[in-house]
Amino acid sequence: MDIKNEMISMAKRAKRASKELAGLSTSAKNSILRNMARGLSKGKKGILKANERDVELAKKKGLSRALIDRLTLTPSRIENMTKSLREVASLPDPVGRIMKTTRRPNGLVIKKVRVPIGVIAMIYEARPNVTVEASALALKSGNAVILKGGSEAQSSNLAIVKILEETKGLPEDAIQLIKTTSRQAVRELLRLDDYIDLVIPRGGEGLIRTVRRESTIPVIAHAKGLCHIYVDRDADLNMAEEIVYNAKVQRPGVCNALETLLVHKSIARRFLPRMIERLEGAGVEVRGCPKTKRIAPGINEAREIDWQTEYLDLILSIKIVNSLKEALDHISRYGSNHSEAIITENKKAAERFLKEVDASAVFVNASTRLHDGGEFGLGAEIGISTQKLHARGPMGLEELTTYKYLVYGDGQVRE
Amino acid sequence: MDIKNEMISMAKRAKRASKELAGLSTSAKNSILRNMARGLSKGKKGILKANERDVELAKKKGLSRALIDRLTLTPSRIENMTKSLREVASLPDPVGRIMKTTRRPNGLVIKKVRVPIGVIAMIYEARPNVTVEASALALKSGNAVILKGGSEAQSSNLAIVKILEETKGLPEDAIQLIKTTSRQAVRELLRLDDYIDLVIPRGGEGLIRTVRRESTIPVIAHAKGLCHIYVDRDADLNMAEEIVYNAKVQRPGVCNALETLLVHKSIARRFLPRMIERLEGAGVEVRGCPKTKRIAPGINEAREIDWQTEYLDLILSIKIVNSLKEALDHISRYGSNHSEAIITENKKAAERFLKEVDASAVFVNASTRLHDGGEFGLGAEIGISTQKLHARGPMGLEELTTYKYLVYGDGQVRE
Repeated sequence: MDIKNEMISMAKRAKRASKELAGLSTSAKNSILRNMARGLSKGKKGILKANERDVELAKKKGLSRALIDRLTLTPSRIENMTKSLREVASLPDPVGRIMKTTRRPNGLVIKKVRVPIGVIAMIYEARPNVTVEASALALKSGNAVILKGGSEAQSSNLAIVKILEETKGLPEDAIQLIKTTSRQAVRELLRLDDYIDLVIPRGGEGLIRTVRRESTIPVIAHAKGLCHIYVDRDADLNMAEEIVYNAKVQRPGVCNALETLLVHKSIARRFLPRMIERLEGAGVEVRGCPKTKRIAPGINEAREIDWQTEYLDLILSIKIVNSLKEALDHISRYGSNHSEAIITENKKAAERFLKEVDASAVFVNASTRLHDGGEFGLGAEIGISTQKLHARGPMGLEELTTYKYLVYGDGQVRE
Repeated sequence: MDIKNEMISMAKRAKRASKELAGLSTSAKNSILRNMARGLSKGKKGILKANERDVELAKKKGLSRALIDRLTLTPSRIENMTKSLREVASLPDPVGRIMKTTRRPNGLVIKKVRVPIGVIAMIYEARPNVTVEASALALKSGNAVILKGGSEAQSSNLAIVKILEETKGLPEDAIQLIKTTSRQAVRELLRLDDYIDLVIPRGGEGLIRTVRRESTIPVIAHAKGLCHIYVDRDADLNMAEEIVYNAKVQRPGVCNALETLLVHKSIARRFLPRMIERLEGAGVEVRGCPKTKRIAPGINEAREIDWQTEYLDLILSIKIVNSLKEALDHISRYGSNHSEAIITENKKAAERFLKEVDASAVFVNASTRLHDGGEFGLGAEIGISTQKLHARGPMGLEELTTYKYLVYGDGQVRE
């Protein structure tokens, strides 16, 4: 009961703050963002100290190295946070932009204008930098934000939010962090559709499923990316090699990294041996279908579970297919509608792939790793939406707004 | 268990159909729509007969006159259905439209294009014309649709859908009607997020609440409209009278009709007597706050519950306010974020009202009844969304699509 009331009070205060935020000028928001950057720089020591406590506890608990790496802050990582705050300050403000003006035969003038969404609840896992980025994007787009970070990063997040919320000019309650680590808090939060307009869960499948099931508030999930690259019979094999290597190796722990490689049978013998050698040289464990194993007998066999797995690690499954159709069917069955790529010089094959693959971004002759707000020219992003509604793909400032219709009349009524 | 499997099979078939629909040309879709119109004209007799059964049963059950009116079909109402099919055929096709093309410094070309959402489940109440309109809009925007109409209209809907689904050229399973009236069917449907991309509930608060609570699929609610008109101190009182009369009387049973009138105290004595007289002349029951009652002692008193009620009937509550601020506070507290209007000649007051009211459409000097896809120039609409995400306000063809990014490279990787 106490937690419930605490959440209601938090959500009400966020709603109140959201009205003030909606009225802030662009220059006021930018100056707050730059003040936040200064605040973080100044408070670096305290943040690092808090972070040490989190890291120590995580090590004691025996959490994975990958998680501890994402959790750990360094002076240069804090510098990057301040940089991202300044970057968001330099991006154009979507709020107030007129999307369309219509003049109707009866003289009515209808303007469709961008407005903030209102109150956004962001539920995420261990990375403390998300605390800063989500706060910055919410503020710039005129939204209040309620943050629920992973419990492993709780001390770091507390230290960061304390600095952010004390920033000069920031409306009270514009940025709030849920301080309890009780799971009941999130459950209560997800029912407060009177006050909260949007929930963004960003994390593993379990988190997303829970939020989807429990929430009565609209959800924009940032879920898994089980991404494929299909190397077509008409591919430039050198290009294919560079792209596959980049998509798997450059940063394997993220959602737009490659998980399954599909290769047309007619080029498999020419392409795979040196591709596999290069991947193994970078520490990648390769698992292949029976046909792939005939070409590279030393590798492990890929099983049904491999086609379904987002490794987020230096592991790659490879399947040889008989046709573009078979590649499309495999992607339709196992893909997560996130990022899919074809490598081909054949325009027809490319167009068919672009048309038939149902994913937020479909690539021809480019790495899936390029599916990113910065790379797409949207500026910073709060994450990559894996659903179809409202926002799909990189979610930048514009995607954190909605619209309203302003209708100017001089006495018009409905006939 | 049987119903569950039936729903899964229906949803799977819809998903399969959606792939075919996404590939249909505009002219193919338009010709199907025109064939549907011919089919309905030809099948008029059968539809009217089926409808008679529904109406008889509804009368036996003692359902309200308003409901029976919405349920009843006549030859001219069927003619209107065929007209709406032809209208949708004449609207521009949003699918495939390029929303934005970006060329990045690394040579990547990124196209953001409109694509269908996929599979849409539409849950609605007694009106059989919604069956036709939802089918038409879904088809034109390339989506498969699963329809769940009110059980009172079941015979009519069965007759209509039988004709629609037999239309020449329509992909199999593109339009499916849930034939059982069991509530379990809807409950099962709302969990099928693997196959269904969007649920649109259109109806009363109970329906919307249930769908929001039960659904793991994204929901775009078409819920209530508790709409206000504020007559400012600087209003043109003749204009105010015409607009208020239109918004309350022209069609009281719909979501954009007026429910509460707010009047500035300084013009109340001049404005209200003749306004109330005219409304009462049209059969409107007027309920007023104590100050209103002092001006018009004959009316009933408005209680707290009145400010919260969407009458959908010839009833109007009136409150006299001391200021624009008090009007804004009342709307913020009781409004449903649907349609709100101010009548004023004062530009500053208008701008403040437009800015501060959080509704999908905010009107100056025009009737709330104009909040409509046709009146806004969007063509037909599937309804008026009362939420902020994805689509807000009239939901036409464009709002029934999403987008995907097509990325054209020549070997780009992530640095």
